[in-house]
Amino acid sequence: MHAEQMAEEYPALTMESDALDAAKLLAEHRLPGLVVIDQGRPRAILPASQVVRFLVPGYVQEDPALARVLDESMADHVADSLGGKTVGDLIGHGEPELAVVNADDTIIEVAAIMARLRCPLAAVMRDDQLIGVVTASRLLQLALAAD
Amino acid sequence: MHAEQMAEEYPALTMESDALDAAKLLAEHRLPGLVVIDQGRPRAILPASQVVRFLVPGYVQEDPALARVLDESMADHVADSLGGKTVGDLIGHGEPELAVVNADDTIIEVAAIMARLRCPLAAVMRDDQLIGVVTASRLLQLALAAD
Repeated sequence: MHAEQMAEEYPALTMESDALDAAKLLAEHRLPGLVVIDQGRPRAILPASQVVRFLVPGYVQEDPALARVLDESMADHVADSLGGKTVGDLIGHGEPELAVVNADDTIIEVAAIMARLRCPLAAVMRDDQLIGVVTASRLLQLALAAD
Repeated sequence: MHAEQMAEEYPALTMESDALDAAKLLAEHRLPGLVVIDQGRPRAILPASQVVRFLVPGYVQEDPALARVLDESMADHVADSLGGKTVGDLIGHGEPELAVVNADDTIIEVAAIMARLRCPLAAVMRDDQLIGVVTASRLLQLALAAD
């Protein structure tokens, strides 16, 4: 089986996309992360957990007990923390390198690249076009179904 | 909104569970990770990507091009690499600490703990019982729906 057959559609945004659009996509599709395209090439994953970090003021991250003193509504938090920001602003610096594979790579090649990069998903390219994504759970699904 | 209302059912296994059962749960439910219980308490996340790492021999992880010389079937890989192992054997040492919250914690407290620990999900406890999990995408879904 080749990456092309394993790949599934998956939401992708660019570094210039609105941070709020990213939050909405993650929320609507209940995804753990999004693929981020930079200069036409899949470059990074934006984890949902990274977006959550932006919702919480730094002093509350340091001491979650302080969360109880916040009297803003959650809606205000979302607007204040994400409004006007781009996906590029949200991308951290410690994110794992995104695994990028070719459409004709085999299942074990895809697994090997994901394993080496410790990456939860692989972007599948054909002729410089992103044709889909293979998530770790998708790979396990196919590996377990193999004869 | 409190953690108890935000929480959803989520598969959990123990450190002694079969690695193959973990792979099957991840594959069937198409999850990015599982909650791992250690001595009665949620202790870690087993990412699907970590299980994928176990499917790939070390020398192939070092050089994915070598994947092409493997002539075993994928089914044999799965049996050989996961058979006889436990979840405890698969858990890495670099995994982020699992966020554990109380049923009566507020949405912002849950977000703060997940943010501080950079954890993609939070285990919700009531009276020492795991009553559910709040994933980052679930939190974003609720945050965006807030009035």
